[in-house]
Amino acid sequence: MSLESQMIELGKRAKKASYILAGISTEVKNQALLSMARALEERMELILDANQQDMDAGRAKGLSGALLDRLLLTAERIKEMADGLRDLVGLPDPVGEVIKMWTRPNGLRVGRLRVPLGVIGIIYEARPNVTVDAAGLCLKAGNAVILRGGSEALQSNLVLTRVISAAAVSAGIPEGAIQLVPTTDREAANMMMTMNDYIDVLIPRGGAGLINAVTANATVPVLKTGVGNCHTYVDDEADLEMATKIVVNAKTQRPGVCNAMETLLVNEKCAKSFLPAAAAALREKGVELRGCEKVREIIPDCLPASEEDWATEYLDLILAVKVVRDLEEAIDHIHTYGTKHSEAIITNNYQKAMLFVQRVDAAAVFVNASTRFTDGHQFGFGAEIGISTQKLHARGPMGLEELTSTKFVILGDGQIRS
Amino acid sequence: MSLESQMIELGKRAKKASYILAGISTEVKNQALLSMARALEERMELILDANQQDMDAGRAKGLSGALLDRLLLTAERIKEMADGLRDLVGLPDPVGEVIKMWTRPNGLRVGRLRVPLGVIGIIYEARPNVTVDAAGLCLKAGNAVILRGGSEALQSNLVLTRVISAAAVSAGIPEGAIQLVPTTDREAANMMMTMNDYIDVLIPRGGAGLINAVTANATVPVLKTGVGNCHTYVDDEADLEMATKIVVNAKTQRPGVCNAMETLLVNEKCAKSFLPAAAAALREKGVELRGCEKVREIIPDCLPASEEDWATEYLDLILAVKVVRDLEEAIDHIHTYGTKHSEAIITNNYQKAMLFVQRVDAAAVFVNASTRFTDGHQFGFGAEIGISTQKLHARGPMGLEELTSTKFVILGDGQIRS
Repeated sequence: MSLESQMIELGKRAKKASYILAGISTEVKNQALLSMARALEERMELILDANQQDMDAGRAKGLSGALLDRLLLTAERIKEMADGLRDLVGLPDPVGEVIKMWTRPNGLRVGRLRVPLGVIGIIYEARPNVTVDAAGLCLKAGNAVILRGGSEALQSNLVLTRVISAAAVSAGIPEGAIQLVPTTDREAANMMMTMNDYIDVLIPRGGAGLINAVTANATVPVLKTGVGNCHTYVDDEADLEMATKIVVNAKTQRPGVCNAMETLLVNEKCAKSFLPAAAAALREKGVELRGCEKVREIIPDCLPASEEDWATEYLDLILAVKVVRDLEEAIDHIHTYGTKHSEAIITNNYQKAMLFVQRVDAAAVFVNASTRFTDGHQFGFGAEIGISTQKLHARGPMGLEELTSTKFVILGDGQIRS
Repeated sequence: MSLESQMIELGKRAKKASYILAGISTEVKNQALLSMARALEERMELILDANQQDMDAGRAKGLSGALLDRLLLTAERIKEMADGLRDLVGLPDPVGEVIKMWTRPNGLRVGRLRVPLGVIGIIYEARPNVTVDAAGLCLKAGNAVILRGGSEALQSNLVLTRVISAAAVSAGIPEGAIQLVPTTDREAANMMMTMNDYIDVLIPRGGAGLINAVTANATVPVLKTGVGNCHTYVDDEADLEMATKIVVNAKTQRPGVCNAMETLLVNEKCAKSFLPAAAAALREKGVELRGCEKVREIIPDCLPASEEDWATEYLDLILAVKVVRDLEEAIDHIHTYGTKHSEAIITNNYQKAMLFVQRVDAAAVFVNASTRFTDGHQFGFGAEIGISTQKLHARGPMGLEELTSTKFVILGDGQIRS
């Protein structure tokens, strides 16, 4: 069978499963999640064996230590995946909610019913835990899922999918609800991007390269998860001690993630009082600073920042620092270089805080807190499939509700239009 | 200046305007809508003159009567456009609504604030009234708009945009909030599809060709308005008199629009009692019937339907008719050939009605009513920018709220992540 027919078969099975899934009760979905969790723990040896194959191949291919660590499964990590599935059981099922219902003058009752999206395609990179997390989230929200993981994790993903899919089916979930693209052929991922008849929504999870490729080539609607060039603006009316704590946290608590701060903007009125202490605190955590000229007047041994630095998501212990005239210049800088992810102001001035909240165009806008809080769990959603930086459908951390759509339900007794 | 620099200039102006617009009060937006309405009426001669040029050119090019009628502006039609703008004044402003706000255990307050989408690009065909309708809706929801109308209506659109844009600016709206692409070069529309830095959302309004081209080529997120291959299923437990009235209305009340019925599905148990009377009533309104074999056994002079008929959106007084075994087959048929727009069941059986509502995957699902009600005004939204047939962001008729996004606002007092 050609790759194309294989992919269409996969799509058809997913579509068919999605129609059944849309009508399956919360109880059955929860039982399936528990079965899947149990199966992961029971088949741990099998999973670890498969992962060992991926790890061996990865080492032979010379993957970096960081990549190998992302690829690695351990008994503990498998247990975490299982617990993640169990956590979903306690979350409210978004499907079936009638968001609103009203009656028109002609007696028609019009309502909005929350329904699954249908079939979700997920294209992701090396981490095999995404296979289980994404399958669980999609299932709880009543969606069929087609998973396309990175080639490095193929053996792990194949076994993980087989284990959780079988467990789900035995609990009453239709075959085809959880499927993995069983090949590492790049062409398969490309096909997913245009399978509009079978895939309702695509979610790419990975680096900028993957996300840009999907955005450029997909005709299927995309939920774009995002690159974060995040800023913190320290205003002259800030509590500077609080500002230092927040800045250090936003940069260093976990520098490799999208909600970490990449550029620090400092009001010129407080630059001299704030920057020396802040720089010392950051450097103590191993942060390399790259500053504008005004920063370098205050911190002479600071490296110079180039135009490129303002636009860079370092994902590392590097921070660009710029002195700005005022709030206005800070907002302009954010609009010029930001990626509309997470932006923070540190100030005790009410008007400036409100202006920043209102005017900064980003998924999450913070006052007096670390940008590191942009996260589904931190916001209290209980689960997260990614952080959207687009404005359609979902913006910011996406939980179960973001994996649903709505349909209008219109109940009549013979109404016709005149 | 090259076309590309022109388009980027347009985009930059729109983006800049959108940042200001996001903070403009409802009062100013409403005053602008009233000024725009007044200006349309005051400059009626100018608009009619420009439209006359388009009409002359259209006749010279041999445009069809239907197209010329869509292109034509009259004093009455201009008055209607002005009244449409005035109607928007009375609608609630969606921007600034805090949809929800909650407090996390660490004291962080997390809320969702409704904000404009930013810059909306609209690519549409011959009807110049879209220029005014779309500009008004985008403005009320706080968005800047870049309009790209059909080449046939260029002179009308240029004058309309100049008139309403000047009126808006004089009422305090920033320059660049309402712009028309001032060329009919096809390349300009193509550029809009990939202007991700300047356009947040694209809405194509027109035929399947336009919508497919935008879907295929756009990297900017698209709100896809839809083609409607709509069905009505007449169940054996239907009130057949009601069914006839609804079917006639759904097919004939306005056959050229997307929510008109294109295929009638009839349960085999009531086919003999229902079809002769229904066919007579439809034919009385000039409808041509194309039936499956079972239909033709009952209505011998009915034309035969081909496979293609099941998939066709006629937008005309033609109806495909099929006898089905049961509800199951009806739903399967709808899922095979439907376009997920508007689907109806006529039945008095509660279980079947609920099953249809739950299982049919469409933007609008009707029980005992005409599919012609899928419409923003009919649903009570007061305005409509189009009917979405995709599942992301908006599904079904889109009103002002669908022209907005949200952002998370997080208010802290020094919280850092541990």
